[in-house]
Amino acid sequence: VRVAVIGVGLIGGSIALAARQRLGATVAAWDPDPRVLTAALDRGAIDRACGETAAAVAGAELAFVAAPVGALADSIAAVLKAAPPDCAVTDVGSTKRGIVAANTDPRFVGGHPLAGAETAGVQHARADLFDGATWYLTPGAATDGVLYERLHRALHAFGAQPAAIDAAAHDRVMASVSHLPHVLANVLVAQAARALHDPATPDTAGEPVPATGPSFRDATRVAGANGAIWTDIYLSNRDAVIASLDATIASLGDVRAILAAGNRPAIDAWNDAARKDRDALLGAGLAGGAVHELRVSAPNRPGVIAEIALALGRGGVNIVDMALSPSHDDRRGLVALWVRGEEQATRAVELIADLAIPVARA
Amino acid sequence: VRVAVIGVGLIGGSIALAARQRLGATVAAWDPDPRVLTAALDRGAIDRACGETAAAVAGAELAFVAAPVGALADSIAAVLKAAPPDCAVTDVGSTKRGIVAANTDPRFVGGHPLAGAETAGVQHARADLFDGATWYLTPGAATDGVLYERLHRALHAFGAQPAAIDAAAHDRVMASVSHLPHVLANVLVAQAARALHDPATPDTAGEPVPATGPSFRDATRVAGANGAIWTDIYLSNRDAVIASLDATIASLGDVRAILAAGNRPAIDAWNDAARKDRDALLGAGLAGGAVHELRVSAPNRPGVIAEIALALGRGGVNIVDMALSPSHDDRRGLVALWVRGEEQATRAVELIADLAIPVARA
Repeated sequence: VRVAVIGVGLIGGSIALAARQRLGATVAAWDPDPRVLTAALDRGAIDRACGETAAAVAGAELAFVAAPVGALADSIAAVLKAAPPDCAVTDVGSTKRGIVAANTDPRFVGGHPLAGAETAGVQHARADLFDGATWYLTPGAATDGVLYERLHRALHAFGAQPAAIDAAAHDRVMASVSHLPHVLANVLVAQAARALHDPATPDTAGEPVPATGPSFRDATRVAGANGAIWTDIYLSNRDAVIASLDATIASLGDVRAILAAGNRPAIDAWNDAARKDRDALLGAGLAGGAVHELRVSAPNRPGVIAEIALALGRGGVNIVDMALSPSHDDRRGLVALWVRGEEQATRAVELIADLAIPVARA
Repeated sequence: VRVAVIGVGLIGGSIALAARQRLGATVAAWDPDPRVLTAALDRGAIDRACGETAAAVAGAELAFVAAPVGALADSIAAVLKAAPPDCAVTDVGSTKRGIVAANTDPRFVGGHPLAGAETAGVQHARADLFDGATWYLTPGAATDGVLYERLHRALHAFGAQPAAIDAAAHDRVMASVSHLPHVLANVLVAQAARALHDPATPDTAGEPVPATGPSFRDATRVAGANGAIWTDIYLSNRDAVIASLDATIASLGDVRAILAAGNRPAIDAWNDAARKDRDALLGAGLAGGAVHELRVSAPNRPGVIAEIALALGRGGVNIVDMALSPSHDDRRGLVALWVRGEEQATRAVELIADLAIPVARA
């Protein structure tokens, strides 16, 4: 497999390492900083450093655009212009609506691996960075099914869990589970700094933060995260973040009201609901069991693979792996899907049947 | 040393274990549930199970009241009524103003160890639960210096870091670094549950939480924490929690405004300030260095030990250990204090001299 990586930071470098070590790929790369390419060669992350995007994507079957959010649009356009007609092109940006709306090329699939580290740069790249991590894919109606499958299989080989999701839903989910927590972490440290260092409250000014304040440490771990990245993320998803902020402000107002009223049953109920919500939200990811194979007989029309992947993603079914085999008559293709656990397998059959697409357990 | 423990849950049980193992104490205990006392005996946490509070505190030099916040007032009153005249009495409640205002007995010192675990009950008690943990003490003007020193030394022996703080400041600090993070965790899971499970947004309804969402997991780790305890904590500190909520709502409104305006420099500046705040808040606890001894010649008047301890706590100086030795003339007492690091030693001398109390480096 020939893989192109455009932008060789922590994520791009880790993709390159995973592609070489786990996919046996040959990796060509471009980065605006030539020293980064030299470091990537030294690190064994890439096979070939290129002087321009076009050279890196020449002959590639898979191209990963791992540029910062601010530079993504231009980088993706340059890659799509230069990439071969049968090359799957994806990106790793943290927000997806803008990118997906701007790129209706059948070769393009928006992507977002939920992986990172506290340290940036190719020198910290690791082949195992994506082990067990959700890697969102946002296929569109025009997305080519064969290229989607190729990308999905590569991500599976990287150790990631690819999950199809609508671009707008992705951005709303990320506003809820990532962007809002970052905003709240910033707000928490700011108010603690005021409370503990404000000369206007002399009895707390100068109080050190207690040595063991686990809830505070956990809640503020991401405070002030890399500003060069995060300002772009907040701005590129600002309507969804603003909606989350409005919901949060309203909820805090509700809590304030039941506290001010000393309404004990309401405080109990609110706290109990939070525990149940967390169990429901985070317990969901723990499903296990044996891997089951499904055989789907899909009509050969554009977008059908994306349609199936999105329906399963929306239904909470995680596609562990997939394989396409076009049939002889060229009107239908056989898609093999693997999902984990009896419950997910049963659910997947129902969801695909709901699309009026023939499906059976293998 | 004879120690009484009233209420033998996770905290009371761990105090009992630490007292036996690290202080060589004999521990007598009372708990409203006789099965808990049996379990504590089986666990080796206590020497003697008592049928009533008065029996447990008879002859005690130190009494710890480890009842839930809701039952604290009555338990403390019962202990003070039955305890010997030279017994130091403390509690472990999460909020301090009410308790301290209600108890002006010279034997009483409010306390709050910042330690806990996800599992409650004496069966999970550990002698090392307090290792490295801040243990707040809120001495009042009437607090007996000898009893304060006895308590401080015991906590030091437990492995904790005793820190004197004014009761009102304690409650404001806890509102900022503990109660508010708990509220925000609850609000975060509730809004994520709405975003991911609300049938009104069909494209996200049913989306599972991504497998790797570290910021969300960290930020919501304490969501829905034990309701039986937390409703009491919120209510007992509600004016401080409400003040924190108001500050947070105002800050979120400010963030919303700069996002809505697309004000990139303001977002950068806000994010940078959060990073600096967090470094300043959490980096402060990392001071190290050799332990230095100070000799303080304190007038023998009530409250002077509390005054010194509070002044040092407010000035960010942590008293590692302390020892009192009354002088022959009975007008002054020598207090030896140990603090860590040259910087803290210098600062401690300044702070004590500011109180017009003679002090010297040993």
